[in-house]
Amino acid sequence: MEQENRHQLAKTIRSYNRKGWSPATSTNYSFRKSPDIPTFFVSRSGIDKSNFDPNDFIEVDFDAKPTFHFEGARPSAETLIHSVIYELFPKTTVILHSHSVNSVLISEFFDKEVTFEGYEVQKAFAGQSTHDNTIHFPILDNDQDMVAFSKLMRQHEADFKNHCFLIRKHGFYAWGDNLFEAKRHLEAFEYLMEITIQKMQINRSQY
Amino acid sequence: MEQENRHQLAKTIRSYNRKGWSPATSTNYSFRKSPDIPTFFVSRSGIDKSNFDPNDFIEVDFDAKPTFHFEGARPSAETLIHSVIYELFPKTTVILHSHSVNSVLISEFFDKEVTFEGYEVQKAFAGQSTHDNTIHFPILDNDQDMVAFSKLMRQHEADFKNHCFLIRKHGFYAWGDNLFEAKRHLEAFEYLMEITIQKMQINRSQY
Amino acid sequence: MEQENRHQLAKTIRSYNRKGWSPATSTNYSFRKSPDIPTFFVSRSGIDKSNFDPNDFIEVDFDAKPTFHFEGARPSAETLIHSVIYELFPKTTVILHSHSVNSVLISEFFDKEVTFEGYEVQKAFAGQSTHDNTIHFPILDNDQDMVAFSKLMRQHEADFKNHCFLIRKHGFYAWGDNLFEAKRHLEAFEYLMEITIQKMQINRSQY
Amino acid sequence: MEQENRHQLAKTIRSYNRKGWSPATSTNYSFRKSPDIPTFFVSRSGIDKSNFDPNDFIEVDFDAKPTFHFEGARPSAETLIHSVIYELFPKTTVILHSHSVNSVLISEFFDKEVTFEGYEVQKAFAGQSTHDNTIHFPILDNDQDMVAFSKLMRQHEADFKNHCFLIRKHGFYAWGDNLFEAKRHLEAFEYLMEITIQKMQINRSQY
Repeated sequence: MEQENRHQLAKTIRSYNRKGWSPATSTNYSFRKSPDIPTFFVSRSGIDKSNFDPNDFIEVDFDAKPTFHFEGARPSAETLIHSVIYELFPKTTVILHSHSVNSVLISEFFDKEVTFEGYEVQKAFAGQSTHDNTIHFPILDNDQDMVAFSKLMRQHEADFKNHCFLIRKHGFYAWGDNLFEAKRHLEAFEYLMEITIQKMQINRSQY
Repeated sequence: MEQENRHQLAKTIRSYNRKGWSPATSTNYSFRKSPDIPTFFVSRSGIDKSNFDPNDFIEVDFDAKPTFHFEGARPSAETLIHSVIYELFPKTTVILHSHSVNSVLISEFFDKEVTFEGYEVQKAFAGQSTHDNTIHFPILDNDQDMVAFSKLMRQHEADFKNHCFLIRKHGFYAWGDNLFEAKRHLEAFEYLMEITIQKMQINRSQY
Repeated sequence: MEQENRHQLAKTIRSYNRKGWSPATSTNYSFRKSPDIPTFFVSRSGIDKSNFDPNDFIEVDFDAKPTFHFEGARPSAETLIHSVIYELFPKTTVILHSHSVNSVLISEFFDKEVTFEGYEVQKAFAGQSTHDNTIHFPILDNDQDMVAFSKLMRQHEADFKNHCFLIRKHGFYAWGDNLFEAKRHLEAFEYLMEITIQKMQINRSQY
Repeated sequence: MEQENRHQLAKTIRSYNRKGWSPATSTNYSFRKSPDIPTFFVSRSGIDKSNFDPNDFIEVDFDAKPTFHFEGARPSAETLIHSVIYELFPKTTVILHSHSVNSVLISEFFDKEVTFEGYEVQKAFAGQSTHDNTIHFPILDNDQDMVAFSKLMRQHEADFKNHCFLIRKHGFYAWGDNLFEAKRHLEAFEYLMEITIQKMQINRSQY
C-alpha cells in the first residue's frame, strides 16, 4: 500500500512537471497511509520533479521532523503547510502543490480571493453538484516563516472549504481524501484559472 | 469489431486528455456498433481520462439505461445527450466531447452562435467543399436537467448541420459517421475556435 | 534511399502534428529522389497526420498524376503547388506545409507580406548570414482552383527567395535542398511568426 | 564521468527542444570536466537539437579552437561566449542557452535589464534565500562579431551575478556549478519571463 502510494504519487508529480507546474526544483507533495497514524510522507527538498522517484518521499511527524535520519536528505521547507492541512481536514490523505504560471498571475491580479461562477467543471470540487453556483478560493500572502504562515492558515480555515488555496506570487495547494480526488481538485482549479487569465487577456477592463 | 472500436476510441480519449481537453474527470464519449442496433457504448462516469481503458465503456439503451448491471459503474450523467444525437443523425456511430478552454471562452463571448468565414480548414466539415463560405455553430445554455436539455437539443436540430454544438461555460460535442470523421470535426472546430480567441486577444476592441 | 526518405519525412510529419501544425486531416508534404527525375512523392489526400505512415506517399508526375493507380488512394488536392515549387527551385528535394494557428493569424493581420528584422534566428534561412537585415515573406490569397493558384505562384517567383510563402487563412509552405534544410526553414518561420503574434497581443497599436 | 556528462547534457538538450527553446538548429551548450583543465566540450554547429547525440560535443580550448580536427564538424559559432563565462565564473562547469520566444520578447520590451520582485521562485537562483527581494538580469545588444561581444560581456561582469544574461532578439545564457544548478537557473528564469509576458498581455497599457 505505501509502495503503491509512493509509486502513484511520483507518477503524478512527473506528469505535472511536464505541464510546467513545477519549474526549477519548486513544489512539494505528500501522502498519508491513514488518518489514524500521526506521520505522513513528504517529498524531499530540492528535487528536480521531472525525475521524481518513489523513494524521494521522507516520513515525517506533524512537527515536520523526519522519523528517521536520512544522510543528505531533508523534507521540503514547506512541510508544516502539509501538517496544518492534515490537521484541519482529517480525512485528507494526499496534498498536491502547483507553481503554475496561471496561479501566480491570479494571485497578482486578485486580492483576498478568486471566485468562479456558472462553469460545468465546478462540479469537480467535492460537495458541488451544479454549475449554477459561485465558488470561492482564498489568497494568502507568501511568507518564508513557516510558523507564522501556519498560524495564518488556521485563521483562514473557514475559507478552505473548496479544497484549494492560493499563496501570493507563489502557487497553490490542493488536497483530497485520496489521490484521485486531490488530482480532480487541482486540475479543475488550474483549468478555471486558465479560463480566467485568457478572458482577462481578451477583456482586461472587466477586472 | 466492438473490441477494436473500444480500443481506438480509448486511445483517442487519452490523446485528447494530453491536449488538456478533458480536465479533472470531465467529458464523455460513445460509439455505436451499428445504426441498426438500439444500444450504444458510453464512457463510465467519473473516470480520469489520462488512464481511460477500453473496458471503461458501458452498453446502454436510448433511455440511458445500462443493458447489464455493473457493480460500482454508472454511465456518464450526460448519456441522454448522446441518445438525442444518435436519434437526430442516424448515420452517426461516434460522439466526442471536449471541455477545452477555447470552447468555454467562445461560449462566454458569443451569444446564440459562433461563425467562421473563409478558412481553408472549413473543408474538414462533411458537406463543405470550399473555404469561401460562412459556417455556423449553435451555442446552447447549460442545464443539469438532462430531460430539459434533450428537449432544447431537439428544438435546435436545424442548427446542428455542421456536426458540432457548444454548451455555455461547459464545452462542445462533435460527431461523425465513424471515428475518423468525428475526430476531423472535433479537431477542425477546436482549431477555428483557437484562431478566433487569439484574434480576440490581439484585437479586443472588436469584441 | 527512397525508403529512408519516406521514413524520415513521415517521422517529421507525425512530430509536426503533435505541435498542432496539421489539425484534422490538413496539410500535405512531398520529397523528390533527385532533381533529375521528373516525378516526386506526395502525401495521400485525407490522412490523419498523427498516424502518418511511410507508405502514405504516392509517386506523381509534374501534372500531379500518379505514376501507378492505387485503389482508393488519391494524391493531395494541392499536389500542383508542389510541382510549381520544384520547377521554380530545381535544387529543392523536400516541401513541407503547415496550417499553424500563428501562420493563419499572420495572414489575417498582414496584407501582401510579413517581414522580420534584427532576429538572430533569421540566419536559419539559407543565404542569410546576419541578424542585421530585413527579410520578406509573401502572402498569397487562397484559391480552390489549383491551376489559377499555380499561375499566381509563378507571378510571385521573385518573392519566394526566403524558401517560404503564406496562403491567406490557410497556412504556409516551406522547402529546402534536403529535409534538414526544409525543417530549418519551416521551424524558423513558425518561431518568428509566434514572436510577432505574441508582440501583437502585448501591443496591438504597433500594427 | 565525461561520458556521463555528455549523456546527461544531451538528454537535457533534447528535452528543452521539445519545449520549443531551440527552434531550427539554434542554441548551443557546453560542459567542463573540471575547473582545472583548460578545455571544455561545446555542441557542434548546425545540429537539429531534437536529435542531439552525446557525441555531438567537440572539445575546445579557451580560444574556441578544437583540440582535435573533426572532419566536417565545427564548434558552435558562439563558443567564445562560453569561454568568457568559464573565465569570469571559474566554478561553472555547465552552460545552457535558450532562444525561447519569451526571452526574445522580454529583450524587445525592456532596455538595459529585466527585474523580478517578490516571487517565491526567485529562491531558485544560487545566493537567493527569500522571495522578498528584487533580482536583476542584464540585456546586451546582439553582435555577430564574437570578439567584440566577448569584450562587452567582460564589461558587464558585475551584472552577471544571477547566473543568466539576455541577448537582444536572440535569447539568453544560464550557467551553474553543475548541470542540476544550471537547469534550475534556466528554468526559473524562463518561468519568471513567462509570467511577465502574460502580465503584459493582460495589462498592456503599462508597457
